Amino acid sequence: MNIPSFADILTAHDRIKPHIHRTPVLTSRIINELSGAELFFKCENFQKAGAFKARGASNAVFGMNDVQAAKGVATHSSGNHGTCLSYAAARRGIPCTVVMPRTAPQAKKDAVRGFGGKVIECEPSTSSREAVFAEVVAETGAEFVHPYNDPRVIAGQGTCSKELVEQVAGLDGVIAPIGGGGMVSGTCLALSNLAPQIKVYAAEPEQADDAYRSFKAGHIIADDAPNTVADGLKVPLKELTWHFVSKHVTDILTASEQEIIDAMKLIWKRMKIVMEPSSAVPLATILKNRGVFAGKRVGVIITGGNVDLDKLPWQ
Amino acid sequence: MNIPSFADILTAHDRIKPHIHRTPVLTSRIINELSGAELFFKCENFQKAGAFKARGASNAVFGMNDVQAAKGVATHSSGNHGTCLSYAAARRGIPCTVVMPRTAPQAKKDAVRGFGGKVIECEPSTSSREAVFAEVVAETGAEFVHPYNDPRVIAGQGTCSKELVEQVAGLDGVIAPIGGGGMVSGTCLALSNLAPQIKVYAAEPEQADDAYRSFKAGHIIADDAPNTVADGLKVPLKELTWHFVSKHVTDILTASEQEIIDAMKLIWKRMKIVMEPSSAVPLATILKNRGVFAGKRVGVIITGGNVDLDKLPWQ
Repeated sequence: MNIPSFADILTAHDRIKPHIHRTPVLTSRIINELSGAELFFKCENFQKAGAFKARGASNAVFGMNDVQAAKGVATHSSGNHGTCLSYAAARRGIPCTVVMPRTAPQAKKDAVRGFGGKVIECEPSTSSREAVFAEVVAETGAEFVHPYNDPRVIAGQGTCSKELVEQVAGLDGVIAPIGGGGMVSGTCLALSNLAPQIKVYAAEPEQADDAYRSFKAGHIIADDAPNTVADGLKVPLKELTWHFVSKHVTDILTASEQEIIDAMKLIWKRMKIVMEPSSAVPLATILKNRGVFAGKRVGVIITGGNVDLDKLPWQ
Repeated sequence: MNIPSFADILTAHDRIKPHIHRTPVLTSRIINELSGAELFFKCENFQKAGAFKARGASNAVFGMNDVQAAKGVATHSSGNHGTCLSYAAARRGIPCTVVMPRTAPQAKKDAVRGFGGKVIECEPSTSSREAVFAEVVAETGAEFVHPYNDPRVIAGQGTCSKELVEQVAGLDGVIAPIGGGGMVSGTCLALSNLAPQIKVYAAEPEQADDAYRSFKAGHIIADDAPNTVADGLKVPLKELTWHFVSKHVTDILTASEQEIIDAMKLIWKRMKIVMEPSSAVPLATILKNRGVFAGKRVGVIITGGNVDLDKLPWQ
C-alpha cells in the first residue's frame, strides 16, 4: 500500500495551484444560531468543474511524466471524479476516457464531454464495468486514476483542508461527507500534520452508512447497492482510505434522508449557494448532534455544486 | 424634488458600512464565452437580508435623528424593501411596520416578521393600501421610507456601484435590472461622478416594459398590472428615478420570460449561486444583444437572492 505523506500534499498544492480555485470560506449568522456552533463553510461547490475532485484529479494528471501523460488517463465514475478528471486532462491537453453505465444520467455524460473527455458506456454491473475498463486501458495505455483509492488523489484532496486552516484560525473540528473517503483521508493527512488538535469528523447518510458501520466494526464493510439522495456517497471505503479513516477520524455521524434534504434547503435559502445533497450531510449531522459541536469553531466542507436543477430533492 | 447628490452616496457608505456586506464580485469563464463579453457579477444576493435594498433601507434608518427614529419607520412593499427595512430597523432597535396585501406570499410576511417587523394587511388594491398606510402613519408617527422614490434610498443603493468600481478596474458598462429604478438611479449617480465613461444600461422584462416605453417616449408611462416571473420589477418609475434614468441611462434592453428563466438557470448551474428571477434579466439581455457588449468589460448587478425554492420558474 502506497500511503501518501504530508509532503505529498505540499507538492500537490504547488502543482495544482494554477488549475484550481482557492475557494472562499462563507459563514451564516442564522445557521450559527440554529446550530449553536460557529461554522465555516469551505465552498468547493465554487471549485473548477464544480467539485473538490478537481484537486485530486489535477494532482494525478499534472504529476505524470510526459510519456505516460501522452497516453492519457482513464477512470470509471458516474460522478464528479469523471468530470474533474476530464477537466484536468483538458488543461494538460491529454486524452481522458471515462467508463460509465449506459444508465447514468445524460447530464453526467455531457459534463465529461463538455471538457473534451470521451465517455465509453458499459452495462450497469461491476463485471461489465471491469471488462470494458480493462479493454480501454489495454487499447490506449491510459493511466488509471481511481476516484479515491489513489495516493495522488488523496494528496490532492488534502489541499482543501490545508487551505481551510490557512483561511480560518482556531478551528476545533472539521467535518466532511464520506463516501469512498478520499476527502476525509486528505483532511486527516493534512490536519494530523498541520494542526493535530483539530478533530476530524465524517458525515454519512443513514441509508448508505457503510463507513459508519466499518468504523464501529474495525474493518471495511461494503454496502450492497445503497440508495440515498446524497448520490456522491454511495461508494465503499478501500484500503488506502480505510487506513486514514480508522486511524485519524474522531467519529462518523449519520443523518436521515429528510434531515439531509432539510439541511440542503437551509443552506440554499440562507447562504444563497447551489450545492449538492452530499454536501449537506455534514450540516444535517451538526444540527442533529448539537451537543458535540456547541460552542465549537467547525470547518464544514461543501464538497460540490453539481446538482440537477430540474430534479431537486425537495420537489 | 429633493435630488440626492454624489456626496450623499459617500455619506451613505460611511453610515451603512457596519450594517451591510461589501459583497463579492464573481466571474464565470463559461458565461464569458457564451456572451462574448467579460462580465463581473456584483453579488447582492449575498447582501444582508438577501438583497441590495438593505443598503437604501439602512441609509434611511441610520440617517434619522433619535426623536424621529423612536417613532419607527413604515413602508408598503410586498418585496425585498419591506424585509430590508425591517432588517435595518432591527439593527437600530426601532419599530418597523410594513403594509402588505393580505394576498402576499406567506414567505414575504414571514421574512419581515423574521427581523421583528410588524405586518399590517390591506386589501390588494391601491385605495386600500393607501388608506391602511395613512392610518399606520397617523397612529405611530412612523417615518415613511418609500421603496425607491426617496433620495436616502437612492443614495444608499448608489453605494453598490461605488463598491463595484473599487473592485473592478476598467469597466466599459454596468447593467442592472429596472423596476422602480432605485438601483439604476443610484448607479447613475455613482458612476456619472466616479467614472462618467462607464455606460449605464437597464434591463427589463418585456412583459413589464414600462421603463423601456417611458425611456423611448420621454415621459413616465406606468403599466397596468404587469405580469412577469421577475416579480421585483413590476413597479413603475417615479419622479426621482425618472430624473436619473432619463438623464444618464444609455439604453434600456428587454428580455422575454423564457430568456429570463434560461439566464437564471444558467447562472445557478454555472456560478452555483441562488438568485432571484429579477437578477437574471441583465444577463438575458446581454445574451440577446451580443453586439452591444462583445469585447466589453461589463458589471452586472445581481440584485437579490430571495426566491421561493418550492416554486422555481423552470418547474
